[in-house]
Amino acid sequence: MKKYVFGVDVGGTTVKLGLFDPEGEVKEKWEIPTRKEDNGDHIIADIAESIKEKMSANSIDRMDVVGVGIGVPGPVKEDGTVLLAANLGWGKKNITMELGELLRVPVMAGNDANVAALGEMWRGGGRGYKNMVAVTLGTGVGGGIIIGGKIVSGSTGAGGEIGHIHLEDEEPAACGCGGHGCLEQYASATGVVRIAKKKLAFSDKASVLRDKEITAKDIWDAVKEGDELAIEVAKVYGEYLGKGLAAVANVVNPDIFVIGGGVSKAGEVLIDYMKPYFEKYVFPGAKNVKFALAVLGNDAGIYGAAKLVLD
Amino acid sequence: MKKYVFGVDVGGTTVKLGLFDPEGEVKEKWEIPTRKEDNGDHIIADIAESIKEKMSANSIDRMDVVGVGIGVPGPVKEDGTVLLAANLGWGKKNITMELGELLRVPVMAGNDANVAALGEMWRGGGRGYKNMVAVTLGTGVGGGIIIGGKIVSGSTGAGGEIGHIHLEDEEPAACGCGGHGCLEQYASATGVVRIAKKKLAFSDKASVLRDKEITAKDIWDAVKEGDELAIEVAKVYGEYLGKGLAAVANVVNPDIFVIGGGVSKAGEVLIDYMKPYFEKYVFPGAKNVKFALAVLGNDAGIYGAAKLVLD
Repeated sequence: MKKYVFGVDVGGTTVKLGLFDPEGEVKEKWEIPTRKEDNGDHIIADIAESIKEKMSANSIDRMDVVGVGIGVPGPVKEDGTVLLAANLGWGKKNITMELGELLRVPVMAGNDANVAALGEMWRGGGRGYKNMVAVTLGTGVGGGIIIGGKIVSGSTGAGGEIGHIHLEDEEPAACGCGGHGCLEQYASATGVVRIAKKKLAFSDKASVLRDKEITAKDIWDAVKEGDELAIEVAKVYGEYLGKGLAAVANVVNPDIFVIGGGVSKAGEVLIDYMKPYFEKYVFPGAKNVKFALAVLGNDAGIYGAAKLVLD
Repeated sequence: MKKYVFGVDVGGTTVKLGLFDPEGEVKEKWEIPTRKEDNGDHIIADIAESIKEKMSANSIDRMDVVGVGIGVPGPVKEDGTVLLAANLGWGKKNITMELGELLRVPVMAGNDANVAALGEMWRGGGRGYKNMVAVTLGTGVGGGIIIGGKIVSGSTGAGGEIGHIHLEDEEPAACGCGGHGCLEQYASATGVVRIAKKKLAFSDKASVLRDKEITAKDIWDAVKEGDELAIEVAKVYGEYLGKGLAAVANVVNPDIFVIGGGVSKAGEVLIDYMKPYFEKYVFPGAKNVKFALAVLGNDAGIYGAAKLVLD
């Protein structure tokens, strides 16, 4: 019986690592810097070195390690080939082979957002479910689709790109993807601020949001305080998000949506404003889906990476 | 080596049956009437009787049969329980158990639209692909999502209900599902006629479509003849369908869309009018999807049902 699994989450600044038992209990967590120089050529070797040190410090034999899972910020093919991770300086790269040769243990790789979704299913807000959609409301809006316990990475690694579902024909501003009217333009952290700025400009209503630089947190705090204008913003936000998630539910009909990312720190109030619109726009047969908040935060990636190896 | 598989497609008027070899070559196809009296209580026994007769006529021993697959017009759970098939008079019913007991061979069941999708993947327009979305443009608009070669039936059997993706806030007419502005209201056979009637009413342009009862076929025939007003209709149709399929692609990023149903008899022209809009609204990373027409027609159901048993 093998006793240890490593989960690795490669970010643009730091690499997060975790040592787990096969039941998903974390034994130890640590970080190393992401060395992006030389087209990120040192990253894999640094990870291997750090894992070897940890094994040595804990007297862990290679034969006791189930394997190493690794999440990467870019599209990853099923064989573990990274197609591109611009953030790290990587072009096409077979990281499972590279890391596997250095450590001589099995290595599995996945896209970081998808891997984080798997973590939330395994040990987070989606625990106990096999059909789950993870929604990340942060700088952008991302998604991770899990069907029958497995990540849907898609034909070209674009599975779960739910932030770019088109919702608004009349949007003059361009999305990062080049489109106009994507879910991300409304439901991200900057999206909710845009909605608020527009409301403030077109209304004379008093509001705690007036005359200052506002953040997503300011808006949701104001909603909780009962600020009328902020509540109008929350309704507009909820309608866009509800409409987008309804489209997702009409495609894959999940058991549960697990909502994470910076904006979700607002808490249940966000779900409360979204849900009536979700129910308005979803196919009636797909209405009985559950909504939960993500619970693992920045650790979702190392959990999901570990789970990759165990599946 | 077992030599035979039966595929059964239960419709509201007739039950279609097929005898296949495990490679998917059809040996024989036939139909029996669907007896809906007594809440459809005779349907399963009739199917069992018909299969037994066919086995006897062909000297097929029970031990040579891999199994029987059956597609049903309603949501079907993974264990083969039909939740409801109003069309047949059925409430909750465990048809795999019932039919299995009568025939004493393995039985697998699935929703008819999903099963037809599987048939198109196995031996039809989606042959060779494992990640496919089948789109049925008929009286309604249905979908079948296949990921890694398996049907995504969803948490409550509503996977692939893509006809009810909300696309239009300004739609006054109600969809069959109770919503307003569903894809089905534009992309179905009646949907394209509605678009045409609206164009005819708001335009003075001469058209072969004027002053008669028009069908979806009339419209696409007129498009092929270069009728200007019909072409305007095709563009509106293409924009709704392209927008809807773009949302689907942003969720599951399939290899291929396979388009069937009565409206698809228009042929490639339908894809030609949809594709530019699909590309406009889809996430750039999911753009390189293929589009093909379904080829099995009404036989897709028996093929997919047979495939259910072979998986």
